Order: sequence, then structure tokens, then C-alpha cells
Amino acid sequence: MSDPIFALDPRQAAIARELYAGVRDLPLISPHGHVDPGLLADDQPFPDPARLIIVPDHYVTRMLLSQGIPPARLGVPRRDGGPVETDGRVIWRLLADNWHLFRGTPSRFWLERTFATVFGVETRLTSATADDVYDAIAAKLAEPGFRPRALFEKFGIEVLATTESPIDDLGKHAKLAADGWGGPGGRVITTFRPDHVVDMDHEAWAENVGKLADLTGEDTGTYAGYLASLRRRREAFIEAGATSSDHGHLTARTANLSEAEAAALFEKGLRGEADAADAETFRAHMLLEFARMSLDDGLVMQLHPGAVRDHNKQLFAAHGRDVGGDIPQATDYVQALRPLLDAYGMDPRLRVVVYTLDEYTASRELAPLAGGYPALFLGAPWWFLDAPDTMRRFREAVTETAGFYNTAGFVDDTRAFCSIPVRHDVARRVDAAFLASLVAQDRLPLDEAAETLADLAYHLPKRIFRLDKKA
Amino acid sequence: MSDPIFALDPRQAAIARELYAGVRDLPLISPHGHVDPGLLADDQPFPDPARLIIVPDHYVTRMLLSQGIPPARLGVPRRDGGPVETDGRVIWRLLADNWHLFRGTPSRFWLERTFATVFGVETRLTSATADDVYDAIAAKLAEPGFRPRALFEKFGIEVLATTESPIDDLGKHAKLAADGWGGPGGRVITTFRPDHVVDMDHEAWAENVGKLADLTGEDTGTYAGYLASLRRRREAFIEAGATSSDHGHLTARTANLSEAEAAALFEKGLRGEADAADAETFRAHMLLEFARMSLDDGLVMQLHPGAVRDHNKQLFAAHGRDVGGDIPQATDYVQALRPLLDAYGMDPRLRVVVYTLDEYTASRELAPLAGGYPALFLGAPWWFLDAPDTMRRFREAVTETAGFYNTAGFVDDTRAFCSIPVRHDVARRVDAAFLASLVAQDRLPLDEAAETLADLAYHLPKRIFRLDKKA
Amino acid sequence: MSDPIFALDPRQAAIARELYAGVRDLPLISPHGHVDPGLLADDQPFPDPARLIIVPDHYVTRMLLSQGIPPARLGVPRRDGGPVETDGRVIWRLLADNWHLFRGTPSRFWLERTFATVFGVETRLTSATADDVYDAIAAKLAEPGFRPRALFEKFGIEVLATTESPIDDLGKHAKLAADGWGGPGGRVITTFRPDHVVDMDHEAWAENVGKLADLTGEDTGTYAGYLASLRRRREAFIEAGATSSDHGHLTARTANLSEAEAAALFEKGLRGEADAADAETFRAHMLLEFARMSLDDGLVMQLHPGAVRDHNKQLFAAHGRDVGGDIPQATDYVQALRPLLDAYGMDPRLRVVVYTLDEYTASRELAPLAGGYPALFLGAPWWFLDAPDTMRRFREAVTETAGFYNTAGFVDDTRAFCSIPVRHDVARRVDAAFLASLVAQDRLPLDEAAETLADLAYHLPKRIFRLDKKA
Repeated sequence: MSDPIFALDPRQAAIARELYAGVRDLPLISPHGHVDPGLLADDQPFPDPARLIIVPDHYVTRMLLSQGIPPARLGVPRRDGGPVETDGRVIWRLLADNWHLFRGTPSRFWLERTFATVFGVETRLTSATADDVYDAIAAKLAEPGFRPRALFEKFGIEVLATTESPIDDLGKHAKLAADGWGGPGGRVITTFRPDHVVDMDHEAWAENVGKLADLTGEDTGTYAGYLASLRRRREAFIEAGATSSDHGHLTARTANLSEAEAAALFEKGLRGEADAADAETFRAHMLLEFARMSLDDGLVMQLHPGAVRDHNKQLFAAHGRDVGGDIPQATDYVQALRPLLDAYGMDPRLRVVVYTLDEYTASRELAPLAGGYPALFLGAPWWFLDAPDTMRRFREAVTETAGFYNTAGFVDDTRAFCSIPVRHDVARRVDAAFLASLVAQDRLPLDEAAETLADLAYHLPKRIFRLDKKA
Repeated sequence: MSDPIFALDPRQAAIARELYAGVRDLPLISPHGHVDPGLLADDQPFPDPARLIIVPDHYVTRMLLSQGIPPARLGVPRRDGGPVETDGRVIWRLLADNWHLFRGTPSRFWLERTFATVFGVETRLTSATADDVYDAIAAKLAEPGFRPRALFEKFGIEVLATTESPIDDLGKHAKLAADGWGGPGGRVITTFRPDHVVDMDHEAWAENVGKLADLTGEDTGTYAGYLASLRRRREAFIEAGATSSDHGHLTARTANLSEAEAAALFEKGLRGEADAADAETFRAHMLLEFARMSLDDGLVMQLHPGAVRDHNKQLFAAHGRDVGGDIPQATDYVQALRPLLDAYGMDPRLRVVVYTLDEYTASRELAPLAGGYPALFLGAPWWFLDAPDTMRRFREAVTETAGFYNTAGFVDDTRAFCSIPVRHDVARRVDAAFLASLVAQDRLPLDEAAETLADLAYHLPKRIFRLDKKA
Repeated sequence: MSDPIFALDPRQAAIARELYAGVRDLPLISPHGHVDPGLLADDQPFPDPARLIIVPDHYVTRMLLSQGIPPARLGVPRRDGGPVETDGRVIWRLLADNWHLFRGTPSRFWLERTFATVFGVETRLTSATADDVYDAIAAKLAEPGFRPRALFEKFGIEVLATTESPIDDLGKHAKLAADGWGGPGGRVITTFRPDHVVDMDHEAWAENVGKLADLTGEDTGTYAGYLASLRRRREAFIEAGATSSDHGHLTARTANLSEAEAAALFEKGLRGEADAADAETFRAHMLLEFARMSLDDGLVMQLHPGAVRDHNKQLFAAHGRDVGGDIPQATDYVQALRPLLDAYGMDPRLRVVVYTLDEYTASRELAPLAGGYPALFLGAPWWFLDAPDTMRRFREAVTETAGFYNTAGFVDDTRAFCSIPVRHDVARRVDAAFLASLVAQDRLPLDEAAETLADLAYHLPKRIFRLDKKA
């Protein structure tokens, strides 16, 4: 099995290995991700290797698409229910035949490490070995030790946050709590993600607002009732263990409307008369409302701006959302965050973790902002940026202005349960290498580097995401 | 002679040298450049060293200009026919006296390697040695083995594409074909570059559209006739070996107008009534038309956006175009390419190679786009970015999302015939060093790195530019 | 004491050390900074360590603020005169208790090196050692050898430029000249910074224009008189040793209005009727006026665009300007500088040194511009970018297009007198390491690297800022 150290020369690599050894076995804190809570609530065996590893992983299917292999040949379901490949082995062979496409990508590394560390399969994947690898993984998946909860323990996960909409009934989390796995301070907790009840551009927004009324008994036909319903759902989420909310808007814009302005906009939306600019203003304003709620209930806010959703129109038409058709765009933070920061940026009770898909804001905007406002922390490089070279560049770009302690630690942000350990492992290795470079250059003593690495890997995310307050 | 390996430490350098040795002598595939086809058609001896190496090289003359040496002192012709330096030796001495300006630049490296590998001159250039170097090169230029065709063979060029306008009569390419050097599958081929018959902002646009009529017999007074004439010229270019078109617009904007809208815009242009916005829309729309033509005739589309032409107004006034007065600007791809990608991005028959002068789009836009659309490939870092550190950064920024196989290989893009080998050599060395860093970090096995390097250096550009289909 | 070499591997580090040794002891040229001239004019002892090192250093106070420590607890004066911490020792302990926040930042490095090289204190700062370090520094501050002029000589400063407004009476500089320390060719000189008499958005603009009249006897109620008064003040600044002006606008915009347009705008401003767009246009135009004045009087122009002043509204309300509340924003140079470059970019008598807070313009805009216009030079990475990794990236991004000789050398830009030597030392170490990487890769011979490093460290800034012309 490869044992990469993302270091620049043998001396730094030696220091990096020493630092990494000190954090390799620390428990995993996963404060932001997209694992289906039903997976752990129901604890059923995983399906075949292709359905586990390829079909739901848009990193993998988009790379194959980029070379002309349609998602249907990889088993990705069609919106029209039309035929797609159903034979896991056939899908698996397609991956093996095109394995060279993944050279230099984190997907290759994540998959190889997952095969090796989770399933004990160290055979190199090629067209010739495709069936062997498939069979070996399939055999493991049939064993009881490879059910989700058993793997959760094997992976050393201390806490895993999933992500749910306010209109989710949190039934899976109730089941987890009943089994001693969930609830406040539990091992599996939820995250409050209100995008689809906030974003008037979403086709089901009005319907979702109606569902909020059903769930809470509040009259969401008024703005005051709408806000009250959101507060009620936050309480329910906190009961299901949530310590944070998540907001995935197109831009980072925030706005601080008067109550009357906000109410007027909300009503315009319900009447179906809001245009794109109205929707943007309402999303921007709701971030201020959520900040106010956070001051009351303590949820940490996460902002994930910058993804143009469903840029690939034909892919969306055929296969729907979240299948690899999103593309980042340039993101402004300096002006966009100003209304939020004017109002609450100096309040240390508020915690806002900001992510980016636009690394070309790192030294210019993100580091100066996080290094200048008590409420602001920088989230881990995300999605397209969750890769060794990019993570390294991010540290190099933000540390000199923001230091380490205005960053919030790694989040895996993944749907792929089995890839959680390797994703954290990569982050630990990259941070070890970056810290080793400081040590090797005589910019930081080794003992402080070791302490910093443990903070980044474990203590910092636990504290910043308020996961250190057991129920 | 220097033998640089662009690697970060001795261990990586050793791996890089091993990888590089495997591709050093592969034939050169040059699918995009600006060598005058008459050079090889006529095969005349080169003029003196200064006229060969300094006068036409805007990388060199602009650097000297930036320190106050006017182009006229370097022999660059004036538009008004006014006097310029004509003594090659005097020009050469000016370069030698200012050689320190080129420290750290690719120009220095290209020139030194050209002196050494093409002309066998290893003397370091200084004020004191200027005449010796000049004389040594001049002596070589007088030998028959230093005529263009002899050098072409010595350089190991397998295929060289030049660039012509649709209103060029392709006479030099006919001569080359007659000599067994040109035509489909030949050693010297053309590229279809229609900018000046598409760009209404160009002062000679209407005149050029008229010339299209003369060349094809189509009535280019109508939009339908204009399109037909372009199709006819593409046929002629394909007969002259072309496998690609090239489009050098200010922005990457594409647009998909209706036929009626496009025709109205075209007619407005012919009436001299089009404004800057009309011209931009028409350019944008024509990229969709060319994509449709490519689906029929198979020409690979190259998009080269982002250069503000003739930013240096006084330089343009004195010396005209292409003398070093262009400056890059920020370029958007995510929204700009959307109309093209909506229409044809999922069609694997189409190949669009996109270049950039704005490296700050690499991880945010270019890699996600190329890694998500079958039709899209990333061209080599271009012009100001065609330099070792920049090329390295580009690989580091795009590989983790797009891999290697959504990139299209190196293009030298040069007017400087004698610099072709060294430019390809630099690209091979940089890619060898980047791959060596992956090997040294245990991120890629050596055998796969070697295969990848050969693909980047030779097989990939040959395949993507459709140069593997001999006539 | 740490002795960092910002090099990537031991071989490069060895070359870097050799190169660095050649420039370590060269005199310091400080053509741009914000030291109070009264410090050297009056030559009084420094106050306690906290008031010297923490209170006025917004790099330090903003980092502590970012983790919730309010500036008042650090002794930063309040605008309302309200209470702030006054016990230097208490402030010092707060820094020591939070020293880990500065890991990986230049502040840590600057402070540690200042403690060690200026005060001879090598104890590592911790909560436990805070008092020892404080006492040791305090003891030194009481010695005569630690007065400003003594330190100036000990630091090896050859020339130090301070920055004054045209409405400053330059009395401190007169005192320095009387003592043989100031005036043309002197050791302490001034810089002409007219922002607050140019920027109509500034609350005291009209008042400041009135003060210009008082100082010069010109009628600044007319545009012609206003220009005349500025010319008169430039003469006075040149008498106080100035060789450059400095312009810190929000953007890099320049504009070339007719005299009538400019006069109309000026009068509109005086009537209090100018809006934000008018103010921006007037600032832009005044850069052209100052360029014209520079052609006459030889002052080098420095442009420092891109800082959003007082982004942190609450911080500004409590503590005023220049306390860490500014944030950079994206900056365009290509279009913004065009009017200036169209008019005077080709005139080698003009020198414009351009700085950036937006490193994501370096290879795209700044290097091509500086490498293409005789009048343009690139200033050192500034403020948030004045740090080892960022400085390295800047060299890597600009050298391949602009070379070394279109950059203007290091400026410390600091208010912190005691940090001047270490800031220059870091720049010399970073450039040594960058040059060493070229040598190690066989891209530059060692002797040329050594010459280049001495130019960057000493000769280049001296020449470009016209500090080589003794009175």
C-alpha cells in the first residue's frame, strides 16, 4: 500500500512522518458530511462494490463522463426511469479500464486507500485485475464486520454529522438516538440545512414553506410565522444533536433588511412574483436572520458559497442533481459578507465558518477577514479543492495572515461513508507536511508543530463546532 | 550547456531525469504555431542572427523596451517606414549588453539552448562575447544544413501546423504539398483561423468578408452565403492538411442566436452600424456556428481568449500589431462557455481545446469544466504562461480535478522556428519533474508516470488534434 | 535564535545560505515606510515594551482581536477616550498567553528576531517567561544605546523615508536637517502623500484644501491654484529630501480629463456636491496630474491600491483608522492604468512603482505590464503579502515575464521602527532562496545569482527610487 507523505524532500518527509505518527490514530471528528443517516440507523449490509463505490460518487462518474462514458453506462439512475447499467461487475470493469484517467487525482488515492485499509485489497487495479478486486471487496461486504456500525467503530469516528433539511422529520436520527447512537452529544448528529426553504429560486420553495407549517404548527403564510417555524425546527435539530447549520448559496451575499422589507419580500415570493434579484436578496437577508438565531441557540453557521448548480444542463436533464454537473465560480467575500460582519462580526458568541471553491480569494480576502473578525473561521478547502496539492496551497496562502487558529479543521463533506477515514488521513498528512516544512526551515519548533497538528486534526474542529459539550 | 531539471530536490531530480530520458527523443508534434509556411515552402537560408533571433521575437524586444530601449533600436520595422537600426551586429550587442534583464525568464533559457543545441555555441553571452556568438551563429546560418527543411528534420518534427486566415490563398501550402511536405497527413499543415473575417471590430472586416466571396464564389452579402463561404474555406484548409481551427477572441463568450438574429446582426455589421456589443455577440455566436461546422467536418476547435490586443497604444502607433503590446485580462469561462456547452458540450464528436492567459481560473473553472464535459480539453499554458514555474503551477492546479487526460499536450505557439525544439523540451522537462514529484511522494508508480509522460509529450496531442489519421 | 532559510531542500538551503551571506550586511535602503519622523528628530527613549511593540502594531492586535481579545485590553486608544488597559506588563502577558496564534505568521518571526537581534533576548516567549522577556527588553530600553538614532546606526540604515501629507509643515524634517540627519541626500527623508487633499470622500478634504492655501499662499479655491499649491508643496518636500510620492487609492483607476472637466469636478467637490463616482474620477485624474508633475520634478510615483479602508465598522467606531480594520479587495490594473500608460507609459523619465494586495493579478496583469512599459516597476509584496511564502510566490509569478529588473526591491512599509532590520532580512532571505532554486535547477549561474541578489537588496531600490543622487 502506498504511504504518501506530501513533502518536498526527504528531510521534510522524515519530519512529516514523525508529526503524522502523532495524529494518525486520533479519533475522527466529522462535523460536516452527507452520509445518509439511514445507513447507520438501519445498519444494513452494503450492496455490491460498484453500487457502493462508483454509482454514487460523482467525482468518479464525472471523470469518466469527461472522457465520453455516459453516466447511464455506470448505473447512474435516470430521471425518466430509463434503462441504465445494472450489472455491478460491468460497471466495475469500466472503471478499471479507465483507471489511468485518475492518475494524479485524489479519487485514485481515496479509492486505493479504501480498498487497502478498509477491505484489505492491495492488488493494483487494472483491466486484468478488475474481477479479482471486485470479488475480494464483495466477499468482505458480506461479512458482519463490514456493516455500517461496525465500520464506524473500526474507522475510529468519534462523531459524524449528517445534513438534513428543516422539512425532514429526523426519523432516522430518532432511531439512532433510541439505539444510543444519536441525540445531543451522540455519535451521529444532524445539521440544519435550510437552503430549500430559503431559496425562492428552488422550484419547491413555496411547497416546502408549507411543509414547515405542517411540521411546526406555525402559520408560515406570514414572515413572522415563517421565522418562528424555523426557530422551532432548529430546536428539533438541536434535540437530534445538531451543533451547526449549513448554508449553500450561489454567492456569499448577506443583507440586513428591515423586518418590513423582509416580510414584503417573503410575501412577494409566496405570491410567485419574486424575480432572481429578489431571491438573491432574500437568501442574503436570511443569513442575517440565521445569525440572530445562532446568537440565541448557539448553532455554528457554515457558509458554502460559489457552486453554480447544474451547470451541465444535459446531465441535469438526464440524471438530476448532485451527479457531477456543478461548477464553481468566482466568489466575492469582502463586500458580500459586510452586512453580516457589520452586525455581528465582532461578537465572539457567533461562529461563522466560511468555505470557498475559489482558491483565488485565499490570501486576498479569506485570510484577512478571518484574521480580523472574531466571529469568522475558515473552513477546509472543499469539494474540488479537497486534494493534497490544493490543501497545501490553501495553508500556504492563509497561514501567514490568519495563522492556524482561525481555521476550523478538516471536514470530509462526503456521501461516501467508506472514504471518510482516508479523507481525514489525507488532511492529516498534508498538514503534517506543511508543518514539517516550517520546522525544516527553522520557522517553528518541532514541539509546537506537533501540538498544532493535533489541534488541526482533532481539538480545533471539536471546539469550533461545539462538539466538546457532551449532553 | 545547462541541463535543467525543474525539480525540487535531488531525489525528485533523479526520478525526473529518468522519466525525461524516456521522452527526450520522441518526435515533436506541433499542432499550433505561427511559423511562416513560406519559410519551409521556399527553404531559403535564414538572414543574420539578429534578424532571425531578436527582431521578430516580441518576448525579447518587449523586455528591452521595458527598460527603455525602443524597438526601433532593435530593428523592429516602423509603420511609417521611418528609420530603424539595420546593422544586425549592433542589435545583437544591445541584447548582450542587457542580457541580465533575462535572468529567470524563459527567453534566456530558450535562447541559450537554441545557441547550444541548434548552433553548437556554448559561450556565455556577455558584452565581451557578443561578437563571437554572433559570428559563430552567422557562420552556421551560411551552411546548407541550416536551411529550414534541414533543420525541420534535425529537430525531429513529425508535424507542424501553421496558422492562416480564410482569405489566405494557401499557396505556400500548395507548394509544400507539391514537394511532398504538405496536405492531409503531411508534415506541414495549416490551421483555420477566421478571427479577421468574424470580428466586426477589425477595421478590415467588411473587406475581408468580400474577399471570402472572391475566393469561394458565394454571395457573402447574405448570412447564409457567408456561412457557406466559411464552409468552403474549411474544405480548402482540410485539403491543405488542417485538422483544427483557432479562435483568438478577447473573451471566451459564446452565444446561440437564432438564424434570424444572427443574420440581422451580420447585416447590421455590413452596413457599418454594429457597435462593440454587437461585435462581441456576433463573435460569441460564430463560435456556435463553428462548433456546428466542426461536428460535420471534424476540425478541432481551439479557443484562445483573454488578450487585450495593442494595450500599448504608442507601441501600436509606431510598430503595429504583434510586437509585444498585448496584455492579458481576467477571463470568465463558467458563464461564457455555457451556451456552447449547453448545445454541444456532451457530444464527444466535438473537441474544444481551451487555453488561458489567466492562471487564476485554473482550479476554479478550467479543471472542473474539462473534468466535467466530454467535448472540453485544456490547452497548454500559453504565451506569458509558457514558462517552467507557470507550467508547473498549471499542472498542480488542474490535475487533481481534471487529471492528465483532459489536457491536450504542449503547443509551442511560436513564430520562432529555431526555438521549437527547446520549447517542447522545456515542457517535457517540466512534466517529467511534476510526475517525478508524484512518484517521490508515493502518489503514482514509476511505470505509470513514464507512460503518462509519453502520452503528454506525444500520443495525447497527436490523438486530440486528430493528427493520427494519415491521409 | 532561529536562522531560517526559506528553501525547499538542504541543497538549495546551502546555496541560499551562501548567497544570503553576501548581502546580509549590506546597508538598508528604506524608501517607503511610516515611522514617525519625530522619533528620530527628538531621539527620546522608547516607552515600555508593550507600548513599543504591541499597542501600535495592528498585525498583532488584529490577530488577537480575531480570537476575541478586544483592542482596549491591549491598550489601543479609544476614540471616545474611554478606558483601555494601561499596564504594559498586563498587555504583554496577554500576548504571551496567546503566542500560539502567531505560529506560521511573519509577526512571530519579526518579533522573535527583534527580541533576539535588537534586544539580545533569546528566551522563548511563553506564559511562564512573559515577565522575564518583558523585563529584559525594558532594561535595554533604558540604555542610551537603545535610543532611536543609536538604533538607526546599529541597524545599518542608509536612508529611511517617512510619509507625510502635503499639509504637514515638515517641522520634524527641518529639525532632522538641522541636525545633519535630513534634507536632500540625507539619512531621513520624507515622501509626498497627497491622498487626503485629493480624495473628496475624505471627511476633511475641503478643509485640507484650505490648509494648502494657508501653507502656500495659492488660491486653492480654483483648480489652477490647487495644482499650483501642490507643486509648491512638492518643492518643499523635495527640500526635505523626498524622492517619491505615494498614492493609496481604493482602486488603480487613472483618468485623463481635460483641464475644464477637471476644474469643474474640483469645483463641484468644493461645493460639497461630488458623489462617490465623482470622487473616484477625480482621484483617477489626479494621478495623471501627479505624473505630469513628476516629469517636471522627478518624484517617483508609488501606487498602493486595493485596500478597503475601515471594513471593520465597529473597530473603526471604537478605535479609528489604521488599527487593523482594512481588508484587501480584487484589483484591476489592465484597464485601470491604461489612461496613465497611454499618456506617459513609454516615457522613461517617469517611474511608477505599482504595489498590490491582490496576488492573483501577478502573472496575468502586473508582470506583463511591468515587462512591457518603460515607466512601470513592480513594488514589493505589501502588507498582508509581506511574508515569506507570499513573497516567494510573487517572485515565482512575476519573474518569468518581468524578470528581476522591472521590480523595485523591498520596502518595509512599517510603523514599527525596531522591526525594520528583520523585515529587510526576511526579504533578503526569501530572494536568496528563490535565486538558490534557480541555481540548483541549473537555470542561473551562481555568480549571476549573487549579483542579482545584491541588486535586489540594495542597488535596485537605490537607483529606482533615485536615492543615488546625493545632494
